[in-house]
Amino acid sequence: MAQLNSHYLKLKAGYLFPEISRRVAAFLEAEPSRAASLIRCGIGDVTEPLPAAAREAMHRAVDELGTREGFHGYGPEQGYAFLREAIAEKDYRARGIPIAPEEIFVSDGSKCDCANILDILGVGNRIAVMDPVYPVYVDTNVMAGHTGVADASGRYEGLHYLACGPGNDFMPSPPDYPVDVVYLCSPNNPTGAAITRERLAEWVAYALKHEAILLYDAAYEAYISRSELPHSIYEIAEARRCAIEFRSFSKNGGFTGVRCAFTVVPKDLALRADSGDRHPLHPLWNRRFSTKFNGVSYVTQRAAEALYSERGQSEIRTLIAHYMENARILRAAVESSGLVVYGGVDAPYIWVQGPEGASSWDLFDRVLREIGVVVTPGSGFGQAGEGFFRISAFNARDKAQEAARRFAGMKW
Amino acid sequence: MAQLNSHYLKLKAGYLFPEISRRVAAFLEAEPSRAASLIRCGIGDVTEPLPAAAREAMHRAVDELGTREGFHGYGPEQGYAFLREAIAEKDYRARGIPIAPEEIFVSDGSKCDCANILDILGVGNRIAVMDPVYPVYVDTNVMAGHTGVADASGRYEGLHYLACGPGNDFMPSPPDYPVDVVYLCSPNNPTGAAITRERLAEWVAYALKHEAILLYDAAYEAYISRSELPHSIYEIAEARRCAIEFRSFSKNGGFTGVRCAFTVVPKDLALRADSGDRHPLHPLWNRRFSTKFNGVSYVTQRAAEALYSERGQSEIRTLIAHYMENARILRAAVESSGLVVYGGVDAPYIWVQGPEGASSWDLFDRVLREIGVVVTPGSGFGQAGEGFFRISAFNARDKAQEAARRFAGMKW
Repeated sequence: MAQLNSHYLKLKAGYLFPEISRRVAAFLEAEPSRAASLIRCGIGDVTEPLPAAAREAMHRAVDELGTREGFHGYGPEQGYAFLREAIAEKDYRARGIPIAPEEIFVSDGSKCDCANILDILGVGNRIAVMDPVYPVYVDTNVMAGHTGVADASGRYEGLHYLACGPGNDFMPSPPDYPVDVVYLCSPNNPTGAAITRERLAEWVAYALKHEAILLYDAAYEAYISRSELPHSIYEIAEARRCAIEFRSFSKNGGFTGVRCAFTVVPKDLALRADSGDRHPLHPLWNRRFSTKFNGVSYVTQRAAEALYSERGQSEIRTLIAHYMENARILRAAVESSGLVVYGGVDAPYIWVQGPEGASSWDLFDRVLREIGVVVTPGSGFGQAGEGFFRISAFNARDKAQEAARRFAGMKW
Repeated sequence: MAQLNSHYLKLKAGYLFPEISRRVAAFLEAEPSRAASLIRCGIGDVTEPLPAAAREAMHRAVDELGTREGFHGYGPEQGYAFLREAIAEKDYRARGIPIAPEEIFVSDGSKCDCANILDILGVGNRIAVMDPVYPVYVDTNVMAGHTGVADASGRYEGLHYLACGPGNDFMPSPPDYPVDVVYLCSPNNPTGAAITRERLAEWVAYALKHEAILLYDAAYEAYISRSELPHSIYEIAEARRCAIEFRSFSKNGGFTGVRCAFTVVPKDLALRADSGDRHPLHPLWNRRFSTKFNGVSYVTQRAAEALYSERGQSEIRTLIAHYMENARILRAAVESSGLVVYGGVDAPYIWVQGPEGASSWDLFDRVLREIGVVVTPGSGFGQAGEGFFRISAFNARDKAQEAARRFAGMKW
């Protein structure tokens, strides 16, 4: 009698975004005349055209595949050398960080990587997540059987939630007890907060002391504007012994629909096996890649490579400047309405604190009804997000301006 | 103290193909003058240019992404409706099989799907695999902790191996004891055998009787030439209640470097939870897709859709005919040298029985040294493959002809 994975049955119904879609659909069914003026500042999806450097590389790659000489079938599961070398050189070595091409694993998305990394970790680890945070970290641990059931507030038994709020600049310090696996997301989705070098160094020291592993999600690193902030966890040199870093081309190159990302697993990183012996993780992740994955499309990898060209870099800068100008406009508008606003400086997300006593879903419904703007309720990212909502700056300029105009006119 | 997944340490060193690469490299280092004439009939990777229908669709999709109106960011994780509908209509309904678009999940590869499917199954299932077979089924079960350690022959404790040989036409009957999860691969990699409708019906009846689930890998279905053989497990109607089917565009459309495949999870398929209650699997797989995956590249999905156009179908037929003519040529040549040969009729793989007493790696080394052809040792696919080797028909015509000429001249 075959059995399913019963841990899935612990998952709270519905990932955040399906519930948002349901409410928006109900709103538009009740008021169809407002469909045309609805502005979506909810899901963190890019809106601007794909950079020309990437598109031209894709056209060339497609043409290559049309010839016998230029045809590419299965590539190396870990990614083509041309891309791994470009990443190692431009994202790391050029910034003084010694990461080798073989330590880089090219994938089809950071969401996949953040989820799949659990495959190579044991089942008895104590897991800590920031709260609020990207829901994938929590849900994948539930699926893997690393938690008990959820309580009424949605928190799962056995997970350690590191509350993030104004009191700690939305970036937690290490706890005063040991945990084994820590998800750090900086710049943070949803709060827009970015970790300081000092706070990051505290975490690295904590991990080394407790033999913990840090899973560092830096999908939004390109949005960091303050020069003193770290872009990579490996700017703290000892992180090579305790951290895995996740990066993506989704938010810098606009690849959300093209699908390319990468994970860095340094060769110095080792964990304990059940026997108590330490083993490097790199061969395990490499084995996972060769056994459960067949590499990213050749066409996509050529597109990602093109983002590292001079022209690609310039196009990325233009895209980031576009979204961050949206963020500035939106942030100023919401502030002018009297609310307290965080984020939007080193990340394309603005994290808004609602009036005392209003729940996140109340705020979501109110913004939707009153000004026809879709935001994301903060509680969807964790209990500590209650009372907040997230505004995404991913939008066309005219949409961001119009949303800002409407936010500025709200009476809280 | 963080722990790694110790089950990985049970994996036998090296996936098959790295070992082949190592031996070929050693051979060429010893005899560099033979590099130019080496012919690779090892890895099952396509060689012919990507169909024009797919390439043109990709060019159009890339151009779309360059405009604000045509830009596509995150798509539905399960795949775009245009592709799911084309698959449901052309691969299933047109053949009288009632599969709905919502039952189709578009992914970046069958290898990934065959591996990831274990996420939604429980840990206590008794697992059966054909032997010899595609190594991914076995290795992913080892990684997931569903086995003990390997014995000297490479068989893992706790797995049920269904031996396939000339005695059962390389397609096992159901065993006389219950198992819970059965991997069936037809047309089979590596033996080239394809299952009959009668044998498949036996398996479906077995699965329903024992509440087992059948994982049916049909990545090579396009190569079936005999009209009486089933292309889909759902040609046995009751399979909707006990089977998941894996399909791929790798081997029909030549997408090994483009990456697109799909899984069919019928809504009638249910398994037991720990509680003993039955739950449908479709919502679990759907949840896995939305939580751990972000969909396949829009460009790739447009390419896959184009394979269903009249022109795409015609190009697929030309590709299949090309590879199957190679298979015919190679099969005849090896037979003429006096060896017993299987496969190569409903699959692009020829499965050769070596002379009495020769091991698969002996045969591999002998073919490499004597005629400069790279094959795949049968024992790499399982103990029951010992004494056999696989010849892949994926090649340019002149290469296949030259390999055939050399095989025909071998004195066994």
